[in-house]
Amino acid sequence: MVVVLKKNTDEAQVENLVNWLKSLNIDVHRSNGEYETVLGLVGDTSHVDIDLVSSLDIVDNVTRISEPYKSANRKFHPDDTVIDINGYKIGGGNFQYIAGPCSVESEEQICSIASDVKAAGANMLRGGAFKPRTSPYAFQGMRGDGLKLLEEAKKQTGMPIVTEIMDISHLDLFENVDVIQVGARNMQNFELLKELGHTDKPILLKRGLANTMQELLMSAEYIMAGGNEKVILCERGIRTFETYTRNTLDISAVPLLKEKTHLPVIVDPSHAAGIARLVRPLSLAAVAAGADGLMIEVHNDPAHALCDGPQALTPPQFAEVVKKAEAIRSAMCD
Amino acid sequence: MVVVLKKNTDEAQVENLVNWLKSLNIDVHRSNGEYETVLGLVGDTSHVDIDLVSSLDIVDNVTRISEPYKSANRKFHPDDTVIDINGYKIGGGNFQYIAGPCSVESEEQICSIASDVKAAGANMLRGGAFKPRTSPYAFQGMRGDGLKLLEEAKKQTGMPIVTEIMDISHLDLFENVDVIQVGARNMQNFELLKELGHTDKPILLKRGLANTMQELLMSAEYIMAGGNEKVILCERGIRTFETYTRNTLDISAVPLLKEKTHLPVIVDPSHAAGIARLVRPLSLAAVAAGADGLMIEVHNDPAHALCDGPQALTPPQFAEVVKKAEAIRSAMCD
Amino acid sequence: MVVVLKKNTDEAQVENLVNWLKSLNIDVHRSNGEYETVLGLVGDTSHVDIDLVSSLDIVDNVTRISEPYKSANRKFHPDDTVIDINGYKIGGGNFQYIAGPCSVESEEQICSIASDVKAAGANMLRGGAFKPRTSPYAFQGMRGDGLKLLEEAKKQTGMPIVTEIMDISHLDLFENVDVIQVGARNMQNFELLKELGHTDKPILLKRGLANTMQELLMSAEYIMAGGNEKVILCERGIRTFETYTRNTLDISAVPLLKEKTHLPVIVDPSHAAGIARLVRPLSLAAVAAGADGLMIEVHNDPAHALCDGPQALTPPQFAEVVKKAEAIRSAMCD
Amino acid sequence: MVVVLKKNTDEAQVENLVNWLKSLNIDVHRSNGEYETVLGLVGDTSHVDIDLVSSLDIVDNVTRISEPYKSANRKFHPDDTVIDINGYKIGGGNFQYIAGPCSVESEEQICSIASDVKAAGANMLRGGAFKPRTSPYAFQGMRGDGLKLLEEAKKQTGMPIVTEIMDISHLDLFENVDVIQVGARNMQNFELLKELGHTDKPILLKRGLANTMQELLMSAEYIMAGGNEKVILCERGIRTFETYTRNTLDISAVPLLKEKTHLPVIVDPSHAAGIARLVRPLSLAAVAAGADGLMIEVHNDPAHALCDGPQALTPPQFAEVVKKAEAIRSAMCD
Repeated sequence: MVVVLKKNTDEAQVENLVNWLKSLNIDVHRSNGEYETVLGLVGDTSHVDIDLVSSLDIVDNVTRISEPYKSANRKFHPDDTVIDINGYKIGGGNFQYIAGPCSVESEEQICSIASDVKAAGANMLRGGAFKPRTSPYAFQGMRGDGLKLLEEAKKQTGMPIVTEIMDISHLDLFENVDVIQVGARNMQNFELLKELGHTDKPILLKRGLANTMQELLMSAEYIMAGGNEKVILCERGIRTFETYTRNTLDISAVPLLKEKTHLPVIVDPSHAAGIARLVRPLSLAAVAAGADGLMIEVHNDPAHALCDGPQALTPPQFAEVVKKAEAIRSAMCD
Repeated sequence: MVVVLKKNTDEAQVENLVNWLKSLNIDVHRSNGEYETVLGLVGDTSHVDIDLVSSLDIVDNVTRISEPYKSANRKFHPDDTVIDINGYKIGGGNFQYIAGPCSVESEEQICSIASDVKAAGANMLRGGAFKPRTSPYAFQGMRGDGLKLLEEAKKQTGMPIVTEIMDISHLDLFENVDVIQVGARNMQNFELLKELGHTDKPILLKRGLANTMQELLMSAEYIMAGGNEKVILCERGIRTFETYTRNTLDISAVPLLKEKTHLPVIVDPSHAAGIARLVRPLSLAAVAAGADGLMIEVHNDPAHALCDGPQALTPPQFAEVVKKAEAIRSAMCD
Repeated sequence: MVVVLKKNTDEAQVENLVNWLKSLNIDVHRSNGEYETVLGLVGDTSHVDIDLVSSLDIVDNVTRISEPYKSANRKFHPDDTVIDINGYKIGGGNFQYIAGPCSVESEEQICSIASDVKAAGANMLRGGAFKPRTSPYAFQGMRGDGLKLLEEAKKQTGMPIVTEIMDISHLDLFENVDVIQVGARNMQNFELLKELGHTDKPILLKRGLANTMQELLMSAEYIMAGGNEKVILCERGIRTFETYTRNTLDISAVPLLKEKTHLPVIVDPSHAAGIARLVRPLSLAAVAAGADGLMIEVHNDPAHALCDGPQALTPPQFAEVVKKAEAIRSAMCD
Repeated sequence: MVVVLKKNTDEAQVENLVNWLKSLNIDVHRSNGEYETVLGLVGDTSHVDIDLVSSLDIVDNVTRISEPYKSANRKFHPDDTVIDINGYKIGGGNFQYIAGPCSVESEEQICSIASDVKAAGANMLRGGAFKPRTSPYAFQGMRGDGLKLLEEAKKQTGMPIVTEIMDISHLDLFENVDVIQVGARNMQNFELLKELGHTDKPILLKRGLANTMQELLMSAEYIMAGGNEKVILCERGIRTFETYTRNTLDISAVPLLKEKTHLPVIVDPSHAAGIARLVRPLSLAAVAAGADGLMIEVHNDPAHALCDGPQALTPPQFAEVVKKAEAIRSAMCD
């Protein structure tokens, strides 16, 4: 951390600051310049509140140089984390396809799609029971009943299930869920993250649509600080000025997150663009960029497309994506 | 709502769509062009799911023309909503100053600031008990104990208290709180919004840092759909590419929100820029733009500035802002 | 400037870097930490290329602490620059209203609006002769002929004229123009800026729609480095994710730019929002935030509104804005 | 184009509007609703000025449904455009690697890199002679002399050269340049685009860092409207709130632009992230997403890395990117 002091600051106040920092076990290196004085803070500065230091009258600005996250930091955990989900591994070279419908709608629907995506190459089933919707007048999901239908699909196909939680009070209902998803809108619901840190289930943490990679890693840190180190990060598009796509897939996040952290990083190409015909090129781009998995929306019944989002593939389209993605994975390993 | 169909679509499918829309009590006007066919949907389209219609194979794109919110919409409620908080009114020409520290730290601190800001012209006291912090290692607030100290400050000064809720499970603790604040990070925590819709307390709803004005109004709609119409909207800066300020205060949101909705609109200039010396010009700009109130961070003890954010004013600085703001309010009414 | 070196770097390479920096008359202060080594660079670092240093293998990251602009920097020129335009001053407490149509269309049109806005309180006339249009099929302005009509309006009313240049090759045509405007799209047309640095006319430099305040100041620096110190900065809205307004007026830019630089700062509320009914509240907000002037689009003939943008006021509406703006200016000075 | 009229508008004014539109050969279909009246405009609306219609008092809002570009539009030119550059084809399944240094610095440097990148698989040489730099104090390029050195490298290697133009007045110097590049900052320098529309050289048009895909296509339209249809589009990252990367590569732009237009689309991964170690994953992602080419910065002398940007690869690193990119191209064709 580098603290730049204002010109002509009171020396007694500077000494107070230096002494306080030393009491936190931080070494302070001072450089006096013509226009400003610079303090270099060396040591474990992850516990120093940057806003707090910035607020001091004598301080011009503060720059954090080392990352504020520790458990998620690859510097301290060089090896890839591999997460095992009922025998299916993700991370450390292991790649997984997670597929399924936007929302669970009926037993027939979810079981039929589950069997279709399994045949097409997916190992895990996704499906929304609790649905975060912008409008209070839109379908809010089947909620608890939807979770039961997912369990039924798991029983029939053997696929682990991945589904989103929206509130701490629903946690008991997620007992048979294999991976708990935290949606983009809840990425900074810190009370929820803390609670998930006390569970032992893998957490699929989606990047918020206006959150930086560092904030995503800090949210992972919230879960890990509670003791649960099984966090899978998911890039799903960020909000920009572009209007042709719903969000802008930040493909650079894949290699950059994998450099900064040891956690697995997957991509959700369905929500990133919000356009079904972009799912294929974005999926292949994610694989080529080094992602550890893909989470893709698939619907099974074109006649009922009304109930699916504009971003969903049919099972044959999904199978085609898996086939090309595998070809690229092979090409990259050669 | 305007639906543009793809070229050469199957007429049977178009008829299905039209019939389904008519079953929702929507009138459909059709225009056939050389390159595309356009359907104009007229009626109450707030219940039509735009994503759902977009997803149809025969649809090229959909544009919503009327606003998707009803209870919050000024079209249907032309008169300003006035919210009465223990006798202090906001909206409809009534202006309020809400002031206080970032976090509640001790009885002495909160009571002293409360009395200072009251003397300087504030009618309501703000102070954080539950604090949403990016880092799990940062101070998380005094939580329940902080709420008790706020109640003590209210007893001593008679000022209504405004403080943030972070999770549904804490709602019981907020019984003596006068205005419940929903923070920017929880603006789309829909489960929380629904629950607050069943209370009878005024809700101060902050705009999320990457949320559009329409999304803010939809979140207000979530609360209002539950029966609680006492919603105060708060602009507090949005996330942009600019780095000199923490966020970019969207000053246009003040007149535009007041045009779209009958709800009161206030501004938080402290969090918008994150720089104390910008609080005064941004406060005056907010008043000149037509805001119904200001929420400003004030700390009382420069020696303890360590415990305040870089965006807090001292009580004399706050008093100066109130004085100039009142002068501008008078100038505008003449 | 602070340079953070990577862990375990080759000492010989570090010495090379330090020696090279010293050869540029930079003092280098070194702090060795457990995880990284930090170099504090003190002196005139405005000539050090930050990208160049970042590119070194041994460097982890570089942070510029002092501003990269000198001529525009208030640190080195504490007093406000006052620019005199044919007797009308701007900056240092002097406020100007610049008004006129989007495009010059005819002698009658421009002379009539000029006389109307003068009566309403404007001292300078704006009007586009060269028009930057997104579409090649849209009206591109009257170009050279438009400049002649502006000169005629100036002759009739005595108002100095402000108009936009789009290419160096047109410079000769601007001989009788009083203030040359550089539009948002040309803010980083560096060849044009350099050329304008060799003229002696005041330059009104608009902020690019995705440019930071620092980039705006660097573009002013380009003009000033050529010898022309008469630069007026203009905030006119930045591009964000919000869709209700064409751009987001960055009101914080007014006080912040005035803190960073001694140059006058004005606001263009017409282009910021792109909505005529927001011009009044945004104008008043700009005045309250401390702007040195306003540039407002005014059209005179409602029957010909087809030829004006959706952001133009009528002369009576403009007169009302001037009246309220003056009331606020008085209120702020008391 | 869909025009929504305000409630209770004067019928005579509506008729005026309808008649004016019909005079432009536009068919107008009218739908009268309870809250608003909707006009559906059918025909060639590319010449209708959307701002102009929006400005009418009787108009609530206007939505353009068909694209405002014609020459660049795939709807009217379904087949891929293939551009031949001295025998090297790009577009329509033809892929090209363009490589070279950020700036031309000396004959030895440019000829050596040219020969290195040719050996590694590049067919075209890039190198900056005119350099757009944010700071007036930074190296501005060798300008005319740099162009001569590029011509020398072309003579020695036979590689066509691609280099950036910054001002119309330099056009004569570009006589021996094979592809003229328009940089991101000049994407909306409309006078320059018009002039390039009158040349017969291929134009490599980079997307501006805050420009939408539609604006990029409109800028291509400016060139094409002048008669030059040889335009290559280049995605190079857009400006967002993320700070870990210099820009955010908008990978979705590749498939989406190729859907909207028949022009070739290439990617510049070097400038997108501004980080050399991201060039490989982003290059592979671009290939997997369907790009028609890559433009990559390569420097040859690690000891002189000071003179290269942080985004440049060494020739062996570049060769490795080409090898993997070719493997992915094969995998995708199978």
